[in-house]
Amino acid sequence: MSKRPLILISNDDGVQAQGLRVLTRLMCQLGEVVVVAPDSARSGSACAITPIEPVRLRLIRQEEGLSIYACTGTPVDCVKLALEKVVPRRPDLVVSGINHGDNASVSLHYSGTVGCILEACMKGVPAIAFSLRTRELQCDFSPYEATILRVARHVLLEGLPQDVCLNVNFPQVAALAGERLCRMARGNWQQEWRESEREGEYQLTGYFTNLEPEADDTDYWAIDHGFAAITPLQLDMTFFPSGRENGVEIKGLGNGD
Amino acid sequence: MSKRPLILISNDDGVQAQGLRVLTRLMCQLGEVVVVAPDSARSGSACAITPIEPVRLRLIRQEEGLSIYACTGTPVDCVKLALEKVVPRRPDLVVSGINHGDNASVSLHYSGTVGCILEACMKGVPAIAFSLRTRELQCDFSPYEATILRVARHVLLEGLPQDVCLNVNFPQVAALAGERLCRMARGNWQQEWRESEREGEYQLTGYFTNLEPEADDTDYWAIDHGFAAITPLQLDMTFFPSGRENGVEIKGLGNGD
Repeated sequence: MSKRPLILISNDDGVQAQGLRVLTRLMCQLGEVVVVAPDSARSGSACAITPIEPVRLRLIRQEEGLSIYACTGTPVDCVKLALEKVVPRRPDLVVSGINHGDNASVSLHYSGTVGCILEACMKGVPAIAFSLRTRELQCDFSPYEATILRVARHVLLEGLPQDVCLNVNFPQVAALAGERLCRMARGNWQQEWRESEREGEYQLTGYFTNLEPEADDTDYWAIDHGFAAITPLQLDMTFFPSGRENGVEIKGLGNGD
Repeated sequence: MSKRPLILISNDDGVQAQGLRVLTRLMCQLGEVVVVAPDSARSGSACAITPIEPVRLRLIRQEEGLSIYACTGTPVDCVKLALEKVVPRRPDLVVSGINHGDNASVSLHYSGTVGCILEACMKGVPAIAFSLRTRELQCDFSPYEATILRVARHVLLEGLPQDVCLNVNFPQVAALAGERLCRMARGNWQQEWRESEREGEYQLTGYFTNLEPEADDTDYWAIDHGFAAITPLQLDMTFFPSGRENGVEIKGLGNGD
């Protein structure tokens, strides 16, 4: 019998989050599982790391084929620490989520769930983030289980292109309309601050606007129309004005030597 | 006389950092300046935001053409709050830095300095991050002043492509060899955790490895060879396997409806 795959799981909602428990149960069907997740909610952590303070790691559960650790660091710290100090061998897959709240369009830049997979990707491990458009802390994840298993199995078998990871977002529906490969929608957050009663104090809030609602190839469109949105992300953020093969050029900048 | 440009400045080393003071002095030559920066060092903040706790804003200096605020939030919070609640009109330019430490290659994913410009970019404001490869808290920024002014003037006059911002990294040299437009080098951080004396406690550390040291079109190569590295970054992280015009396709994923 061949060795079962090793799967590392993290998230940004914390080790107690329902989405993490569901993802853990599903991944245990596919392989041996190690969970290293923040000890409390760390939403909006992006790729933040903890450069000054030490971080602490605590084993909270161990059984056949499953170990669960809580970590005081950020989601990216969790993945870094897991890969270097926790896993018995290089994982075959890193998954994060299932996040309570979508991470589509520019929201992915703020997302610790996506931070986890960018970190895994930097270390050369195939990685998938799963997020659900919901504001509920307890919700029914069963409509997404088949897709999660299918995408994870696919990546375990086929891998992903170098320096590419997958950002998967679900709409809150009783049954998915299907799955779509997407690009990030252009969008932004607006009216983001509510003034507190105390002068000079502000609370982050706001609403998201999709700047290209008619485009049917975006992650936002897919979610809005009941589809699972699968968006491949690349680590390289360089802007190539006329395609990668033509290099970087912006008139008036970079006069060389 | 035409109105002077309005320039917003932030950073991740905090409002007291030397690099911020230098950048503020330089930008005051180009326009009216508003500084909104974290009240303490926030290195490694990436695009992190503060979704739960309120953030506080405090005016610490005001004079003709210059206002300086300290904020308890992350670098991205600073830019968000400044744009919505502080500036008297939409800024013509957002700059961040000068960071003590480079933000080239994948390090930009962890960088609050870069987080600032991604946030400005999401809001449609041209933005430039400046970082210096150094480990010193006090250093001589004079070799970079001419380039900083030239790049900032260029962007004020010409703007930048939609959803694109500039990540500028300097080597620590007495005189720059020149400026180069670059792409992000492939690279990663290794041996990132030092075990503390207390069991289960770890301190982030590590060293960076450039995975393509021979490639002379990368930001790392430029810095290694004494050049200012100017790397245009785009908000869209979608991986297009055969170019944007051909859309997203990965065999076996996204079976449609």
